Amino acid sequence: MTRLDEALAAIRPLDGDAMAAAQDRLDHLTKPPGSLGRLEELVAWLAGVTGTPAPAVGRRRVVIAAADHGVAMRQQVSAWPSEVTAQMVATFLAGRAAISTIAAAGGVSIVVLDVGVVSPIPAVAGGAGAALVSARVRPGTADFTAGPAMTAAETTAAIQVGLDAVDRAVADGVELLGVGEMGIGNTTAASALVAALTGREPREVTGRGTGVDDAGWSRKVDAVARGLAVNRPGAGDPVGTLAAVGGLEIAALVGLIVGAAARGLPLVLDGFITGAAALVASALHPDVAPRLIAGHRSVEPGHAIVLERLGLRPLLDLDMRLGEGTGAALAMGLVAAAAAVRDGMATFEEAAVSDRL
Amino acid sequence: MTRLDEALAAIRPLDGDAMAAAQDRLDHLTKPPGSLGRLEELVAWLAGVTGTPAPAVGRRRVVIAAADHGVAMRQQVSAWPSEVTAQMVATFLAGRAAISTIAAAGGVSIVVLDVGVVSPIPAVAGGAGAALVSARVRPGTADFTAGPAMTAAETTAAIQVGLDAVDRAVADGVELLGVGEMGIGNTTAASALVAALTGREPREVTGRGTGVDDAGWSRKVDAVARGLAVNRPGAGDPVGTLAAVGGLEIAALVGLIVGAAARGLPLVLDGFITGAAALVASALHPDVAPRLIAGHRSVEPGHAIVLERLGLRPLLDLDMRLGEGTGAALAMGLVAAAAAVRDGMATFEEAAVSDRL
Repeated sequence: MTRLDEALAAIRPLDGDAMAAAQDRLDHLTKPPGSLGRLEELVAWLAGVTGTPAPAVGRRRVVIAAADHGVAMRQQVSAWPSEVTAQMVATFLAGRAAISTIAAAGGVSIVVLDVGVVSPIPAVAGGAGAALVSARVRPGTADFTAGPAMTAAETTAAIQVGLDAVDRAVADGVELLGVGEMGIGNTTAASALVAALTGREPREVTGRGTGVDDAGWSRKVDAVARGLAVNRPGAGDPVGTLAAVGGLEIAALVGLIVGAAARGLPLVLDGFITGAAALVASALHPDVAPRLIAGHRSVEPGHAIVLERLGLRPLLDLDMRLGEGTGAALAMGLVAAAAAVRDGMATFEEAAVSDRL
Repeated sequence: MTRLDEALAAIRPLDGDAMAAAQDRLDHLTKPPGSLGRLEELVAWLAGVTGTPAPAVGRRRVVIAAADHGVAMRQQVSAWPSEVTAQMVATFLAGRAAISTIAAAGGVSIVVLDVGVVSPIPAVAGGAGAALVSARVRPGTADFTAGPAMTAAETTAAIQVGLDAVDRAVADGVELLGVGEMGIGNTTAASALVAALTGREPREVTGRGTGVDDAGWSRKVDAVARGLAVNRPGAGDPVGTLAAVGGLEIAALVGLIVGAAARGLPLVLDGFITGAAALVASALHPDVAPRLIAGHRSVEPGHAIVLERLGLRPLLDLDMRLGEGTGAALAMGLVAAAAAVRDGMATFEEAAVSDRL
């Protein structure tokens, strides 16, 4: 069991030698140099993250962290009732959610971490859509407009759930990891985290989430502002901020991101919530962000702010705002295509193709 | 054998009833309405193009049209010698080109149309990377700075190669078609076509192609300008313009695009060259463009002009500029994911997930 401090101590900068070797291979393939654009960047990134020029990405997994939010149960910040979190976990297990179908189409398996879903997970008949890890730290967070969402011990425990999931992924031979989330109310928690860590105003980082109306949006902005006023989280204390206004699944995502960085496992982010977790992880260690791929750009307005802070340019921009890891899973297909190009293409010499004039 | 006039007469607007039925299905699935963004647009588009609410896209093919260009053989507009066209066709057949690896990773087969490659195709040992259709109309076009690139009869014959490829695809059960191209010098021909059809200046629509230097770029712009001055193609005569400054593979692409529109076969474009062909096809019939998906945005500056004229927003923007159908093949994976979402997701009722508050 890798602990957070151990994981942070193990994180290294991207491996420049491996990246140079990957680039050299790319430059000999039968195409004009650089003509595959960001696919070539992905090949170099895979090398830098793993420390080997041509790592396989055959075994791919999305880990979905799920939990509930006191702020949703008390402050009407979501268009959906909290029981939907448990129902959607059941839908993942049944293989019938959006992420189920996208992951299956892309050869990606799914693991769900129940870090603190408040309702019982409904029984699923015959589904093998995902593996479930039951690791409930507590039944949903406390309402952060009235005090901290979690205690320090609970936050540490939830982070550990993510770290453990990375250890399991590595043991299972996973070569490319995506992260996603499910938690009614979690765009409110992510907005509060992003506001606290970036100093931006609540209204700038708060969006419509899964679809609140104008009154709901005003309640979200107000809840974020009250959460920050009541808890006064400090930008210099990322884990304390996570405890104050974050969420159990967001803490697990922090563990997943830090753990993957420590283990040299390539990781693809999804949208706003996973981005907020990456912001926390990045505040804990400066070499985390270059080890991440932003799978897509969410329509949540706070996501653009997160991406700018992380220095990440998303691979996809498809007007999506679902979460679950859907954007990550789609982008993992592009990473796999980049690796296929790297491994399958002939060099000019092998193919006897004439060089430039 | 479908002729061009027959194909044009068969093109219909998108089927609104099928699109409404597809949208209705989408709105009952276990996700906030609209939250899958452009994936949902793709589901509706598939319905509109095919006239059925949920068409399969299991059998996917990229057709690569290949030919050489007199302007490249005579005017030094490319960084590469014309013999590379034949060598790259051999690399497609061997399964070792960029498109080979991307298509294989996405479950897409490849057919290459030799519409007028000037060199013999080198023998390939043991490759089964693509099927080759030998349909050489002439050994490369004439240099369009000295007169028309092709005769009217040659243009008709090259368009017919594309129309026939659609008939074959339909007969083979292909459900989603991508198009790509290979032809040293064909960004110059595409630039001339786009300038003629849009009235834009040669320097606005001419880019670096596979990588010419400043002097090469100036030669390209000059060749385009001379081609337009010598041939004086009229924007109101798309096929005449194609004959004057186009190319054999571009004419075949026009046939592919018109044929797919006529047969209700969903078609994904690649980059600048296929976009120039789509501009010709769109000038022949106003209902062609809505039947197309722009797979990606190329870095060629003329491509943005083409996309704007066609009213198409590309699915991907990955700084690619290779051609071969690489952008189309990557985007076909997103279309397949959209269909997987449509077919695999549960409705709220099926999954017993609570509706909105």
